[in-house]
Amino acid sequence: MSENNDYAIGFDMGGTKMLAAVLNAEYEVVAKNKEKTPSEAGNEEVFASIVECVDEVLEKAGVKRKNLCGIGIAIPGPIDVANGIVYRTPNLGLLEFPLRDRLSEAIGVPVVLENDVNAGVYGEFVKGCARGFLHVVGLFPGTGIGGGLILDGKLYRGSRGAAGEIGHTIVQTDGPLCGCGSHGCLESVASRTAIAKDVIGLAASGKAPYVFENAGTDIRKVKSGTLLKAIEAGDTAVADVVYRAADFLGIGMANCVNIFNPEIIVLGGGLVEKFGAEYIARADTSMRRHAMSHLVADVRIKAAILGDYAAIIGAAALVRELGKTDAA
Amino acid sequence: MSENNDYAIGFDMGGTKMLAAVLNAEYEVVAKNKEKTPSEAGNEEVFASIVECVDEVLEKAGVKRKNLCGIGIAIPGPIDVANGIVYRTPNLGLLEFPLRDRLSEAIGVPVVLENDVNAGVYGEFVKGCARGFLHVVGLFPGTGIGGGLILDGKLYRGSRGAAGEIGHTIVQTDGPLCGCGSHGCLESVASRTAIAKDVIGLAASGKAPYVFENAGTDIRKVKSGTLLKAIEAGDTAVADVVYRAADFLGIGMANCVNIFNPEIIVLGGGLVEKFGAEYIARADTSMRRHAMSHLVADVRIKAAILGDYAAIIGAAALVRELGKTDAA
Repeated sequence: MSENNDYAIGFDMGGTKMLAAVLNAEYEVVAKNKEKTPSEAGNEEVFASIVECVDEVLEKAGVKRKNLCGIGIAIPGPIDVANGIVYRTPNLGLLEFPLRDRLSEAIGVPVVLENDVNAGVYGEFVKGCARGFLHVVGLFPGTGIGGGLILDGKLYRGSRGAAGEIGHTIVQTDGPLCGCGSHGCLESVASRTAIAKDVIGLAASGKAPYVFENAGTDIRKVKSGTLLKAIEAGDTAVADVVYRAADFLGIGMANCVNIFNPEIIVLGGGLVEKFGAEYIARADTSMRRHAMSHLVADVRIKAAILGDYAAIIGAAALVRELGKTDAA
Repeated sequence: MSENNDYAIGFDMGGTKMLAAVLNAEYEVVAKNKEKTPSEAGNEEVFASIVECVDEVLEKAGVKRKNLCGIGIAIPGPIDVANGIVYRTPNLGLLEFPLRDRLSEAIGVPVVLENDVNAGVYGEFVKGCARGFLHVVGLFPGTGIGGGLILDGKLYRGSRGAAGEIGHTIVQTDGPLCGCGSHGCLESVASRTAIAKDVIGLAASGKAPYVFENAGTDIRKVKSGTLLKAIEAGDTAVADVVYRAADFLGIGMANCVNIFNPEIIVLGGGLVEKFGAEYIARADTSMRRHAMSHLVADVRIKAAILGDYAAIIGAAALVRELGKTDAA
């Protein structure tokens, strides 16, 4: 057993599952615990199961509440960071809920809430592929495109904790309709959803036989794995769609290079994991073609390496640093 | 006469003129001096005239070199901030010149170099329309579109001092050719140059008679003033072009809102000065239509108020703060 306050809990709150881990001062996982999120049940029941999940992972780790420096919680949606309120995440079952203060009171330690993409990028910065850099842009293409920013060595949150919506910057004025209601956002041309919309069109018109056979024409059935298998099975039109999306991602990356003059861009999420080096190379080539040459010359592109633990480590690091700031 | 170190010089280095001012601790102008830039003459002659311009403004102010806390110089081009080198500004006559250290040695006080747009936005932050805010985006549509960022109360420079190229973010993939060689940059659709290209086309095809009569079809003759007079004279097609550019500027502003979650966007430059409230209102409306609603709700849009003195005040503030940081 270690001395006081050497542990932090990182907690990734998802719509279907909650993943909590006790991490030591080196951000190594001492114990973890995964539970279902009772997202249909409402604020109090979800809250009770968070407390239970925390106590169980502490028991697994053999760590007492009083040996925690705090709990960092990654939330898949907008948060009122100043007041610690989860305010619009229907798929979690939490609505206008003061999670920070309630959990802090229940467990007796500081609690920090952070958007899950921000927490994930911060995790890669603290312990992953972006360690040692000061200016980091994270982009996570998946259902949407999440973005996170480390500027001058600090997580950048903006005036209300909602910065980093790089997925909703417009790169194609009057382009495809985006989930946010706007047109031509990066997300509308480069996310897995954007790819799936085009691929379903191909399937319906007979130009993607593997997809048609295995996913029909239901957009929800077109996962990253389906796309990869379709390309491997010879659906060349699907490959064109995926790599065109990578080209667009590169335009979003180029915009970030010109705005932030970063040292590194971290790419993660399902498309990056499934398609790997070739997808990244396409995005990289497009970025270098579209960014200003003196800004892009030294920029590194790296794939995220922490997977599910990125947000957990990042959230834990944020609550640990809160302690340091208070002490300073 | 005031006590030691209460004065700073702000110095705006342009291709045709140099403007230097002695500022007191409240950033009020004690004296100013304007000289021609001998930009054809090469490094040493340009440097000698900078030293002379500094000494003359000190004499006008009745301030001695030893009463200066430093000199801040705004440069219209890329700078190696870390090493204080002006490295690619042919229109100044300076090439790979270590201006910071040479001038610091010559005058005997600290010198800071900063990009002129960054310095201008910083000036508005310190003493102008963005005073009191912590998250500020500055956009200056003119020949190009300059951008500057104040994030968490500090000028954001990026990893090599070259951040803030918002004018070269792509908002219209495969759009018009931009001066940077890329296509569809914000600058290629919203700058005065972009407007002038379209207006010259109108003039050549008989759809902008005022412009044709007064500027012919020479793009260099289409200034902001020409555009305003053409609209007032009834060239409605010109108005359409200008306001379409304002709509595009609003898209660039929306992208900044979604990325930075700022409190305020400062607009400046020739188009803003000439077209004023109506132009700003168009850009504002477009921004609110294209940005995420929870991010844009509280964003203020203000016109820059310091004009030619913004960069001078900003540069002086940066060198003054350098002193504070050193002392801390």
